Amino acid sequence: MTTSRFDITKLSIMRWMVIATAFGFLLILPFDPLVIGTVIASTPPISEASQDCLGCHEDETPGIVADWRGSRHAVTSVSEALKKPSIARRVSVEKVPDSMASTAVGCYECHGLNPAAHKDNFEHNDYKINVVVSPPDCATCHPVEVEQFSHSKKAHAIDILEKNPLYHTLTKTITDLKGFENGKLVSMGAAPMANAKSCFACHGTHIEVRGMKTIETEFEEVSVPDLANWPNQGVGRHNPDGSFGACTACHPRHGFSLETARKPYTCAQCHLAPDVPAWEVFKESKHGNMFLSESGKWDWNRVPWRAGIDFKAPTCAACHNALLTDKDDEPVVERTHDFGSRLWVRIFGLPYSHPQPKDGRTYKIRNADGLPLPVTLTGQPASSFLISKVEQKERRAMMGSVCGFCHSTSWSNDFFEQMDQTNKEADRMVKTATQLMQHAWDKKLADPTNPFDEVIEKIWLREWLFYASSVRYGAAMSGPDYVGFKYGWWNLNENLRELEKRINEKKISAPP
Amino acid sequence: MTTSRFDITKLSIMRWMVIATAFGFLLILPFDPLVIGTVIASTPPISEASQDCLGCHEDETPGIVADWRGSRHAVTSVSEALKKPSIARRVSVEKVPDSMASTAVGCYECHGLNPAAHKDNFEHNDYKINVVVSPPDCATCHPVEVEQFSHSKKAHAIDILEKNPLYHTLTKTITDLKGFENGKLVSMGAAPMANAKSCFACHGTHIEVRGMKTIETEFEEVSVPDLANWPNQGVGRHNPDGSFGACTACHPRHGFSLETARKPYTCAQCHLAPDVPAWEVFKESKHGNMFLSESGKWDWNRVPWRAGIDFKAPTCAACHNALLTDKDDEPVVERTHDFGSRLWVRIFGLPYSHPQPKDGRTYKIRNADGLPLPVTLTGQPASSFLISKVEQKERRAMMGSVCGFCHSTSWSNDFFEQMDQTNKEADRMVKTATQLMQHAWDKKLADPTNPFDEVIEKIWLREWLFYASSVRYGAAMSGPDYVGFKYGWWNLNENLRELEKRINEKKISAPP
Amino acid sequence: MTTSRFDITKLSIMRWMVIATAFGFLLILPFDPLVIGTVIASTPPISEASQDCLGCHEDETPGIVADWRGSRHAVTSVSEALKKPSIARRVSVEKVPDSMASTAVGCYECHGLNPAAHKDNFEHNDYKINVVVSPPDCATCHPVEVEQFSHSKKAHAIDILEKNPLYHTLTKTITDLKGFENGKLVSMGAAPMANAKSCFACHGTHIEVRGMKTIETEFEEVSVPDLANWPNQGVGRHNPDGSFGACTACHPRHGFSLETARKPYTCAQCHLAPDVPAWEVFKESKHGNMFLSESGKWDWNRVPWRAGIDFKAPTCAACHNALLTDKDDEPVVERTHDFGSRLWVRIFGLPYSHPQPKDGRTYKIRNADGLPLPVTLTGQPASSFLISKVEQKERRAMMGSVCGFCHSTSWSNDFFEQMDQTNKEADRMVKTATQLMQHAWDKKLADPTNPFDEVIEKIWLREWLFYASSVRYGAAMSGPDYVGFKYGWWNLNENLRELEKRINEKKISAPP
Repeated sequence: MTTSRFDITKLSIMRWMVIATAFGFLLILPFDPLVIGTVIASTPPISEASQDCLGCHEDETPGIVADWRGSRHAVTSVSEALKKPSIARRVSVEKVPDSMASTAVGCYECHGLNPAAHKDNFEHNDYKINVVVSPPDCATCHPVEVEQFSHSKKAHAIDILEKNPLYHTLTKTITDLKGFENGKLVSMGAAPMANAKSCFACHGTHIEVRGMKTIETEFEEVSVPDLANWPNQGVGRHNPDGSFGACTACHPRHGFSLETARKPYTCAQCHLAPDVPAWEVFKESKHGNMFLSESGKWDWNRVPWRAGIDFKAPTCAACHNALLTDKDDEPVVERTHDFGSRLWVRIFGLPYSHPQPKDGRTYKIRNADGLPLPVTLTGQPASSFLISKVEQKERRAMMGSVCGFCHSTSWSNDFFEQMDQTNKEADRMVKTATQLMQHAWDKKLADPTNPFDEVIEKIWLREWLFYASSVRYGAAMSGPDYVGFKYGWWNLNENLRELEKRINEKKISAPP
Repeated sequence: MTTSRFDITKLSIMRWMVIATAFGFLLILPFDPLVIGTVIASTPPISEASQDCLGCHEDETPGIVADWRGSRHAVTSVSEALKKPSIARRVSVEKVPDSMASTAVGCYECHGLNPAAHKDNFEHNDYKINVVVSPPDCATCHPVEVEQFSHSKKAHAIDILEKNPLYHTLTKTITDLKGFENGKLVSMGAAPMANAKSCFACHGTHIEVRGMKTIETEFEEVSVPDLANWPNQGVGRHNPDGSFGACTACHPRHGFSLETARKPYTCAQCHLAPDVPAWEVFKESKHGNMFLSESGKWDWNRVPWRAGIDFKAPTCAACHNALLTDKDDEPVVERTHDFGSRLWVRIFGLPYSHPQPKDGRTYKIRNADGLPLPVTLTGQPASSFLISKVEQKERRAMMGSVCGFCHSTSWSNDFFEQMDQTNKEADRMVKTATQLMQHAWDKKLADPTNPFDEVIEKIWLREWLFYASSVRYGAAMSGPDYVGFKYGWWNLNENLRELEKRINEKKISAPP
Repeated sequence: MTTSRFDITKLSIMRWMVIATAFGFLLILPFDPLVIGTVIASTPPISEASQDCLGCHEDETPGIVADWRGSRHAVTSVSEALKKPSIARRVSVEKVPDSMASTAVGCYECHGLNPAAHKDNFEHNDYKINVVVSPPDCATCHPVEVEQFSHSKKAHAIDILEKNPLYHTLTKTITDLKGFENGKLVSMGAAPMANAKSCFACHGTHIEVRGMKTIETEFEEVSVPDLANWPNQGVGRHNPDGSFGACTACHPRHGFSLETARKPYTCAQCHLAPDVPAWEVFKESKHGNMFLSESGKWDWNRVPWRAGIDFKAPTCAACHNALLTDKDDEPVVERTHDFGSRLWVRIFGLPYSHPQPKDGRTYKIRNADGLPLPVTLTGQPASSFLISKVEQKERRAMMGSVCGFCHSTSWSNDFFEQMDQTNKEADRMVKTATQLMQHAWDKKLADPTNPFDEVIEKIWLREWLFYASSVRYGAAMSGPDYVGFKYGWWNLNENLRELEKRINEKKISAPP
């Protein structure tokens, strides 16, 4: 026996430990066949064009290159992706052009698409490059998602604010720049950047190509498109290729991580207190408690996603858009990028809760007062523009099937009942506030020409835009403080009393 | 030498790497004897009854089944649990009925207990099932915890609001539904769901059995108890078996994870700004900084819990109720489920800080004004209902021994001194606000019949319910912003000035 | 073949699995040569003095001992640390006294330094121990960091509040204790602990040695220094050795974890809404989304830190003070502990945005009104005390190179443009509010002697101290809600209207 050979006897304990340990680790490896495929697949080649991009950008913008290298786009080709069973796919196309089927989805595969449509396309080191990748570009591989998204309110998020004169007035009033002249405040018009960095940071800006400009970088002088209202990642962005939307609003560049999109922090970029406290309410709920306490151990990347197995408590994505399956990968709810399509009632952004609109372009609605709002100021719904009772019931049942992973049908029914009742109560408070406000308008104590600019009008706005909305979210997702002390019933009552007081003061000081 | 045998020489480097790596991993495995026992123990059998439950519920509610399968209840029997040294046990019973000693703690082991007491018990596929598992049910294995809990304020959280006429008035006033009639706001009484989804979502509702109802599920039609004020997980819930409390308020179904209960997100479901900003203050403290930055590496599941070894900075559980031991597993503080029993001073929910009540049923207190509050409006404590100075000193020393894991006695003493002084200062501001309010009541500028419903009364309420409370929490747990700009001294002064201004206005407009 | 030898044939599959698994783990181990060194180095000896400390403190304060044992200080000696390439070092000294070069950096190595300078030094079991370790002590190994820090505003955080009469008045007004006499509020002077636990909890207190005192611990009676204004970890703390600053403000005891310092929770102890909403804005930004969603997988401990490789999205530390390198460990920005030295504009704490001060001791500034503020109330900068346009441009380019890891130069330029424009808009609103306030002062509707104590003055303060600051932060770090609804433009306008209303009321009630 040579010295280079192991003395098995001596080593038997250590060897046992080696085997036991390594074997133990093997046991905790994902044996899931849907996952194994991915692990074993070899990394596809990078196209010549993308290789050229990387040649410089590996040094120019190493962060996004490294991010991309860690992404699924870098390690899978579309043709490999299509070998998976359809339930496990992240692509929804059946076939892509041969030219890009077998390579990694690299720089040029995304930034080189549809150059003719892209006003932001420019000649860059012998390639024609788009600055702003748009939903139609993403649709090359993800057409179903882009098509679904196009029907959502999100895709029309700019028009919803701009084409609806009431919301337009509201945004302009909130960001109105004021001067001081002759002892008085005077309006100087909406501050342009204020709009772009608040409302339209989430809703999206109009990206326009003003021409070309020369930029001095660390490495060279380059000529690039001169874009107005850019940067912006708003979800309803108007892109230079004429399309609407920004996939990167939720799938941040350039990792496009499914894990990130599934985590509530993504939605929490925009769905926030005081007007849309979805994140804050979730965070304070029992679901949020479980997410925050336990989610380090969940499988955030499996497709399809199995409630209870891959994750223990729902996040925004679970209830609102992910494909969820049972333990045998049978679908319970289908994936959707038409956000809101699982919802039957809409609880924010308007004085009263109301059935979901049929169409994402809500500015097309006309209610009984002729206004582009789904309800009148007295609470009458514009029913022909809203989903039917049958549709409401179907959606509620669909959401119930999500709850049903963990809760009995009886439990969920009772929970939805509580939510309905809460909406009614909050709506009633708003109605009272609105009657009080209407009373002031009628008595000429306020001027309804712009219903949002005076002190008492802002108090009225708070009642529904912030407080009633919080109460409804607090009940819908179980965050008690948002029903109570935090923008909730405490504020509904305190604010209503203040509105009454302010109006009474005006009555006293007003000429008879 | 056959080809199937390794060429040791060639492989020696790789082999060394294998051994070194695997051995390295072995070294980081928990060699802790208290843990090893658990790992090695084989999974106990599931009782026939629970197996029957799983037969359907594996498909009906797969999420909670999967959650349970990952829980300690699923992998340990009580008899196995009792083999551990008592310091390491999670069960506090010495013996359970033979029928459940050797099986997993499954569905029926919890939902089938004490059927005679349970008004929510119903016949379900030949089993008698309780919908709502209650503290007496949990006491089958965890009697000490349930007994401790029964003395806490938490266990009496409903009665504290309802049997104390002042708090009862406060909750009803906060959630008062308003109408508008003849140009005036009119009260329509407390909105029922507003109460249930705010105050009583945390404090608990009265779960009542109205009878039976038929539910259509995806699989079948079932007859189930019709429960009023359900769902609810409030910590003081009144259960259909007549008991008080909901263990699931902090130990969410059906994983009952110790890790979750030990994380501050659990307490943060209810102990929140603006009235009880425990979580927010913690989050902004140095303890919170360490928790948020480092806790991914801590051992959240070891019993007993060793400060500095298993965790580096305290969470709510560490200071307020966990069993903490030194490195030799010698207890430093005992586990308690009588929350508040380590505290000597109470700093929220009342105008003034005061010694902790002796009994969790605080509505039994009578102060010098005959009110069920531990202090009078002028700050006089109802001493006979509150813990003695000796007891206060003992509790302070006990908490000091928790601080003592990381801080010197001198440091802790000085810190407590700062906290005491802060309480005095905040109390002084509340006293001034209360004197001002009393002045308004005396001058008939406000009506004390309901001391919480008028605009100026709400300003007074803010002074103590929100701002003084924040200041005290900010000092007690070192969150400077809550002492300063965030509901702190900024607000104490701003709000007090506003109260004065509003009262002065009333003086001017009041009839002489 | 003996039975103790493996039957290779039978075991070949398992053996393959062992090797494959272990090898797989090897592959994911950090082969980074900068890291390998650390792993292989053996733990240095503990000095005799520190061993004596541990003798008792292992039992007295086990938490900090365990924390220290897990720290780099416990596992590396300075001489080992100096063997690393300079780019990878955490120490900035070139040589330390032989006596401490080869041991772990233990208790006595830090608490025993410079005893003559330390008024808090005391005889403790035959050693001369300092209670408060100070920046000069840390400078023994980290002189560059301490020197850089000494120029920052942070190092002078106390003086900035105390030596500037305006800020001094502001802090005293915010924490003013009020009494109620003859129907009126009366000032009782600033509440001492209110100041210490709010403003000075972050800015730092003056630690003073009052003498010695005797403390009864669990183990013994000890005589220790009696420190005033202690405990405190404020970043500008005045220490008993005459120095300024507290390294533990950001490097919490006794792990001094780089990971913790690099995480935003550290900065979030102080840089918080409503006045400095850096953390809240970051949290709601896309950078924050990526941090919160993905950071569990980042390498928080590598020095130097590589954007895109070690971390995917910047934290506070990445942009503001960490040494960042490219993939070849070539520096892109150097490490700095002169916080703010990468910034060209200052956006909080003052009515108007303005170029960064040249010197951290901002109380030395004199503007055209003779006040120690970098701008006058009308917006005129005290240019000679502020960095030049050239310096501004250089710093902006430096920050652009940080953005440049992931964003094109054009993108960053446009982003900075948006930020500049936002600052201008916010400044304009503050100017209007200030003109309105000045109008009130001029008309004797308010008394400018203390410009911060009256109700309308507090409304004016809110306009700039909270709302304009939020708008600027929201644009600088992309948190749209802080530009809009959350202390943003909604509030800028609502508050300005309220200020106007309150002043108008005073006009009506004022004597002509």
